[in-house]
Amino acid sequence: MNTAPSGNLLVAQSGGPTAVINNSLYGVIKESRNHPEITGVLGALHGIEGVLEENIIDLEKEDPDTLEGLKKAPASALGSIRYKVTEEDYSRILTVFEKYDIRYFFYIGGNDSMDTADKVAQLSRESGRELRVIGIPKTVDNDLVETDHCPGYGSAARYTAITVREIGIDVESLPPPVTVFETMGRNSGWLTAATALARGDGYPAPNLIYCPEQPLAREDFLTDVQDTYDEYGYALVAVSEGLKDENGNPISMAGSEVKSDDFGHALAGGVGSRLADLISEELGLRARDEKPGLAARCSSQLASETDRTEARKLGMEAVKLAIGGASGKMVALKRPESEEYRVEIAPVRLKDVANAEKKMPEEFLNDRGNDVTESFYEYARPLIGRNLPEYSKLQMIPVNR
Amino acid sequence: MNTAPSGNLLVAQSGGPTAVINNSLYGVIKESRNHPEITGVLGALHGIEGVLEENIIDLEKEDPDTLEGLKKAPASALGSIRYKVTEEDYSRILTVFEKYDIRYFFYIGGNDSMDTADKVAQLSRESGRELRVIGIPKTVDNDLVETDHCPGYGSAARYTAITVREIGIDVESLPPPVTVFETMGRNSGWLTAATALARGDGYPAPNLIYCPEQPLAREDFLTDVQDTYDEYGYALVAVSEGLKDENGNPISMAGSEVKSDDFGHALAGGVGSRLADLISEELGLRARDEKPGLAARCSSQLASETDRTEARKLGMEAVKLAIGGASGKMVALKRPESEEYRVEIAPVRLKDVANAEKKMPEEFLNDRGNDVTESFYEYARPLIGRNLPEYSKLQMIPVNR
Repeated sequence: MNTAPSGNLLVAQSGGPTAVINNSLYGVIKESRNHPEITGVLGALHGIEGVLEENIIDLEKEDPDTLEGLKKAPASALGSIRYKVTEEDYSRILTVFEKYDIRYFFYIGGNDSMDTADKVAQLSRESGRELRVIGIPKTVDNDLVETDHCPGYGSAARYTAITVREIGIDVESLPPPVTVFETMGRNSGWLTAATALARGDGYPAPNLIYCPEQPLAREDFLTDVQDTYDEYGYALVAVSEGLKDENGNPISMAGSEVKSDDFGHALAGGVGSRLADLISEELGLRARDEKPGLAARCSSQLASETDRTEARKLGMEAVKLAIGGASGKMVALKRPESEEYRVEIAPVRLKDVANAEKKMPEEFLNDRGNDVTESFYEYARPLIGRNLPEYSKLQMIPVNR
Repeated sequence: MNTAPSGNLLVAQSGGPTAVINNSLYGVIKESRNHPEITGVLGALHGIEGVLEENIIDLEKEDPDTLEGLKKAPASALGSIRYKVTEEDYSRILTVFEKYDIRYFFYIGGNDSMDTADKVAQLSRESGRELRVIGIPKTVDNDLVETDHCPGYGSAARYTAITVREIGIDVESLPPPVTVFETMGRNSGWLTAATALARGDGYPAPNLIYCPEQPLAREDFLTDVQDTYDEYGYALVAVSEGLKDENGNPISMAGSEVKSDDFGHALAGGVGSRLADLISEELGLRARDEKPGLAARCSSQLASETDRTEARKLGMEAVKLAIGGASGKMVALKRPESEEYRVEIAPVRLKDVANAEKKMPEEFLNDRGNDVTESFYEYARPLIGRNLPEYSKLQMIPVNR
């Protein structure tokens, strides 16, 4: 183990925010105070852009209450960015790091950000200047490899489960024949699958779940919706925004050529609205679509406490790991076999995470392609924290007359 | 004042559910216990349909904890219905009422339901059989006349305000150039206007608000979005599902003729998706739409306590009013002039409420047609209950180097 160098710490956030990404930021700041080698705690605004443009703030000048409040604050407190770093940028990054005496760099982000962090670590190593770089995972898409799950997913899953449970009760009490609920997730169905967690004793919705890992077969889909409607008097159908048809074409783009009108050349709506239209047209059932979209990733009110705690711990562990000599690693969540849910934090190589994508494994999806399996419930249930709210339901005992 | 007749009470729920409609049900059940004239407390399932089909339950056989839980239970616990009552139905209703010894009928619903209740009251009066009928208002659309506001609106408004505040923070931290947030509300903009309540110190979103009371002028709309984007680096735009263009055509239907494809003859998406497309096409700004839809009316987690309390009191007052001799009335909320917000409950005639619709008054909307006025804030703020959550925001003090 190397002696930890003395110098400043820099932390930044990248990619789509989550409800708990600021918990990782909090964890980094908090743990940094335990290590005198860390002489200053700085933050780059809007991810790597803040480094390139020297938009760098002093996190030690923030009010302590503001920092405590980060545990509940949605979105990325430092601002975020989606930006593909160029070769030229990398040398600029190293120059800025030297100028600001940065010896510790923590990048909270998804797989693109892990790639950036990996290259920074590598180039710095080659340059001979000591810099310790650790990635901290986050993404509501839950699609990073090498980690059991990603901070942010549990909260988005909890939001989605509670929302679908409530909509399910609504729909049962006044059935619009079909409700199509669209979730985020371009290539993987993790968040769509999480709608299953809405179910419970007396909560049958969602009735059908379609993830992008399996192609959507038109006729099967229509048959399943009709059968569900026949059985329940309504159907609540969860679909992923990234669904594709059997030819691999995104549903949301299919037949997108529409007539222009006074309000411009309209493109087709999203998956939910298209499938609602398909159901109306083909089955003659009134259908509406719901698309909470961004709300799922930024709802602080419905966030998972488990997720918050894990995100915070990852931030803290990242600092300990760097002080201990590591660089070019991401802190990952590992779930040991055990009766009760628990996680351990372990370092994995940034390069193994960079640019890879974890889809839902086959065993989490049923053969028909319209639901999740029991294995998925076992995987996902602990991540959303405490039990979902249960609501009163009348027994409805008929009066005798 | 007549002597109150001895007999059963029947309560039913109708129309789109709200997050607090079960509070009115709870209020009716609770207050009924104070009046020995009421010999039994019955509920009709799925509104007037439950009467016609004799799907009538005994609410006194319900578990007391279940009844207490109604205060938090979303959707209509008795089930709801949208159904136009026929002449034939009315005589059937009176027959069923006689069979079940119903002397008190409480209908919790919107303007259609008030019409139904009014006719039942009238026909019963003509038949000479004593029946006391009271309507209890509910609707997230807030469009009933003769009442300051409608139970259900405050909760949907609170949900909408919190959601837009959180999305606003998200969008500020990682700007997708434009976000179009669509709310429910076919003919009136009450719920769209409620997005304004998301604003506060440090919370500029939503930047623009478009209600259906004012036609959407294409060029002005595009100019406003571009100007907002230029000023903030993003634009969060709230729109009502019922928006119409300057010719009175619904935006959601304009140019709805699209090519058929493998997935059927797709109709166009909703307002949000159409306007997002328009912005992309005309301004070249990436735009996405959000449509929480039903979630706004059934979110128990984000409901307004003020709304819950008022809905409960209306249920209780309705029973007192009927016992006191009234029939053919709706219990309405009146807001006396006062420093602090308070409401009084007063009876109004069902026939004055039936089939009428209250739109946003002109003084609640600005001349440009892209925002609400201070008068709207004064009107709406008390209805959403306690203050919205405030989230930590870093001061972002630049580091010196």
